[in-house]
Amino acid sequence: MASSSLSAKQILSLSTHRTSLSKSITADSPLRFRNPNSLSLRPSSLSSSSNVGRARLLRVSASSTAPFMDTSPSETVSSVPTIVDVDLGDRSYPIYIGSGLLDQPDLLQRHIHGKRVLVVTNSTVAPIYLDKVVGALTYGNPNVSVESVILPDGEKYKNMDTLMKVFDKAIESRLDRRCTFVALGGGVIGDMCGYAAASFLRGVNFIQIPTTVMAQVDSSVGGKTGINHHLGKNLIGAFYQPQCVLIDTDTLNTLPDRELASGLAEVVKYGLIRDAKFFEWQEKNMPALMARDPSALAYAIKRSCENKAEVVSLDEKESGLRATLNLGHTFGHAIETSFGYGKWLHGEAVAAGMVMAVDMSYRLGWIDESIMRRVHNILQQAKLPTAPPETMTVEMFKSVMAVDKKVADGLLRLILLKGPLGDCVFTGDYDRKVLDETLHAFCKS
Amino acid sequence: MASSSLSAKQILSLSTHRTSLSKSITADSPLRFRNPNSLSLRPSSLSSSSNVGRARLLRVSASSTAPFMDTSPSETVSSVPTIVDVDLGDRSYPIYIGSGLLDQPDLLQRHIHGKRVLVVTNSTVAPIYLDKVVGALTYGNPNVSVESVILPDGEKYKNMDTLMKVFDKAIESRLDRRCTFVALGGGVIGDMCGYAAASFLRGVNFIQIPTTVMAQVDSSVGGKTGINHHLGKNLIGAFYQPQCVLIDTDTLNTLPDRELASGLAEVVKYGLIRDAKFFEWQEKNMPALMARDPSALAYAIKRSCENKAEVVSLDEKESGLRATLNLGHTFGHAIETSFGYGKWLHGEAVAAGMVMAVDMSYRLGWIDESIMRRVHNILQQAKLPTAPPETMTVEMFKSVMAVDKKVADGLLRLILLKGPLGDCVFTGDYDRKVLDETLHAFCKS
Repeated sequence: MASSSLSAKQILSLSTHRTSLSKSITADSPLRFRNPNSLSLRPSSLSSSSNVGRARLLRVSASSTAPFMDTSPSETVSSVPTIVDVDLGDRSYPIYIGSGLLDQPDLLQRHIHGKRVLVVTNSTVAPIYLDKVVGALTYGNPNVSVESVILPDGEKYKNMDTLMKVFDKAIESRLDRRCTFVALGGGVIGDMCGYAAASFLRGVNFIQIPTTVMAQVDSSVGGKTGINHHLGKNLIGAFYQPQCVLIDTDTLNTLPDRELASGLAEVVKYGLIRDAKFFEWQEKNMPALMARDPSALAYAIKRSCENKAEVVSLDEKESGLRATLNLGHTFGHAIETSFGYGKWLHGEAVAAGMVMAVDMSYRLGWIDESIMRRVHNILQQAKLPTAPPETMTVEMFKSVMAVDKKVADGLLRLILLKGPLGDCVFTGDYDRKVLDETLHAFCKS
Repeated sequence: MASSSLSAKQILSLSTHRTSLSKSITADSPLRFRNPNSLSLRPSSLSSSSNVGRARLLRVSASSTAPFMDTSPSETVSSVPTIVDVDLGDRSYPIYIGSGLLDQPDLLQRHIHGKRVLVVTNSTVAPIYLDKVVGALTYGNPNVSVESVILPDGEKYKNMDTLMKVFDKAIESRLDRRCTFVALGGGVIGDMCGYAAASFLRGVNFIQIPTTVMAQVDSSVGGKTGINHHLGKNLIGAFYQPQCVLIDTDTLNTLPDRELASGLAEVVKYGLIRDAKFFEWQEKNMPALMARDPSALAYAIKRSCENKAEVVSLDEKESGLRATLNLGHTFGHAIETSFGYGKWLHGEAVAAGMVMAVDMSYRLGWIDESIMRRVHNILQQAKLPTAPPETMTVEMFKSVMAVDKKVADGLLRLILLKGPLGDCVFTGDYDRKVLDETLHAFCKS
């Protein structure tokens, strides 16, 4: 059945231009990143990073080289998955994107190592998709046995206590190094399952099956795994790549509206930091995305994965470029941590955080007012917040931002927009007063 | 001061023969490993492992090519450190071995990244060496600030609750990705600090300063880090390499006799699995080792590190060869887990476990009785146990051995001796009845 459908898989060779890092990476020199259609690659500028040295470029679908802004995105709505490759040398893996992929057992089974599988999921997703996934893992494959562990749902459970439940289940089930962990759920499940896989017996294989827009366009791709500490988000974890990411877009049919919008915040992010044409496409198609038009969603997911995969392939362990994927996240993490994990969804906090980063970029004189206005407009169309919760204070922001992972030798580096749409910098070289101005503009005290 | 002494560092090129893997690695085909003086390297047999592909061979001191059995080992007793390199491509690092190395600040300071250091130690070691290490880190280096976290001492604290204290301290101190963790203590501290470094902010630099024989000859080298689960030892962790290992042999002056003996169990192990001449040297020099003769100890540490580094360089993530370093450990871990973490020291459990593995090898007809006798004799000279605690039952062994990391698809693989002294195999291809016979021979029920 499904195995034959893959003979037509859509891995095509690269014909777009490359993204570059224009300067060597230090805490004090700002890194400037631009639209991938305008620059050439200079890998020598990355030679200080061992990981980047091994990274190669992403192969992307030829469709991305076409003027997609005006074309109708239809190629991903079929049983033939679109494939985006994350190119990381011997740790490369495919992202499968399409409708009905959980009905194609071969896609999953080709990535299962050993005979034992542990599905890690949550109490919301399990009743809807667990049986389907177990079926896909075992169909025509009687030698595989599947265990599952169902965690409570929500960001507030993304902690060490919950993680221990995964280890307990794996050890009690006597899983060995040849087993495979499968993350079935949103970003919290993917991050926790990935970190558990990285740590169980010092590392076992794992697969991502993201079921939210947030996880499908961002968190399931690139190998960032981890848990929260009560003082900050994702402070404990590992870089650990999956064997594959399987995105069945049908799983979005059961996603609550608020979760849908949350994921779109990350889609907007890709446009702002590196893909102006994608942003312009979003401006035209946000109503279709909010109405869950399958073609529009499939295209947004594919283009987001291509952007994410390309960045990760160039800078797996965040020496510089990869940090740009965190536009708005330093402000956003402060909101999530101070306001209470789970009260706002991650994408909601990121949306407000992006508005703050854009505000700061404008105050620095780095972008036109029109960009600020367009960011407001698109987030409002997506029904996302454009300011932090009213209870947030300047001190709450500063306290959490001080433990952000992008602090280096005491200096907080931020991702800020600079130049035309689609260009950003990752820098600690900005006027501290302007950061204060932005914080005070968005907080009562 | 110290910086000049290193111009004479003793890194010399390799002139011994190489160790080989004689077969490709599968769960069902036994891997046979022999004395490094007798075989040639066939790296193609390791091509299935991505890590091995990058590994290169160890540079060892030329002294190891001399007939060291009869020479007086004196070259490491000086202020010039002996250096053993662990060759892992861009993750290579030196092991410094010598007397008084904590009085040479440059050795440590050259490996400190960033301006912030967290020393992880325990309540036994801290009163003796913490000030000295803080002094070495900060002498002439006022830009570096040092935090410390003092954990309770003992294997029973090697768990997630204790690990969280390290994260708490690091986060409360607002350490960032450019910080360095320093493990000051024995194997438990090294394993926990290393895993914390691997996980904090998804990975920060760390340095090992082992203060026990066990840590100096084995656990501080090679990047195995982790914690125990109540159902089994070291089941949660990471492969994560330090920036350097600094072995100041003077720290052994304060080591209790029982800890000294425990470490010697691992020294004996190297002789049995791959270095017959080292074993013969130990047979002659065990009284000197037990009497803490500095020359003898320094030589035993250096030769152990050379063996460990060579194995790790060839097989960092334990595709096969590295598993041989676990001779006796599957039985030993069962003792530690069932009998209660910390009641027996790790080396004591390993000693009894080696006797059991050797007994099983003999029952299989794979070794001469003389080897079994020599193993008994040398462990008795070291005042180490040669049988498990009387309360251990066959069922207790089987229950813990079932979750051993060397189980693959349900098959327990063991390291067993086979052939002349210094040769071993890592295999699941043995008669299950003989394992039962060994367990029954050492347990009442």
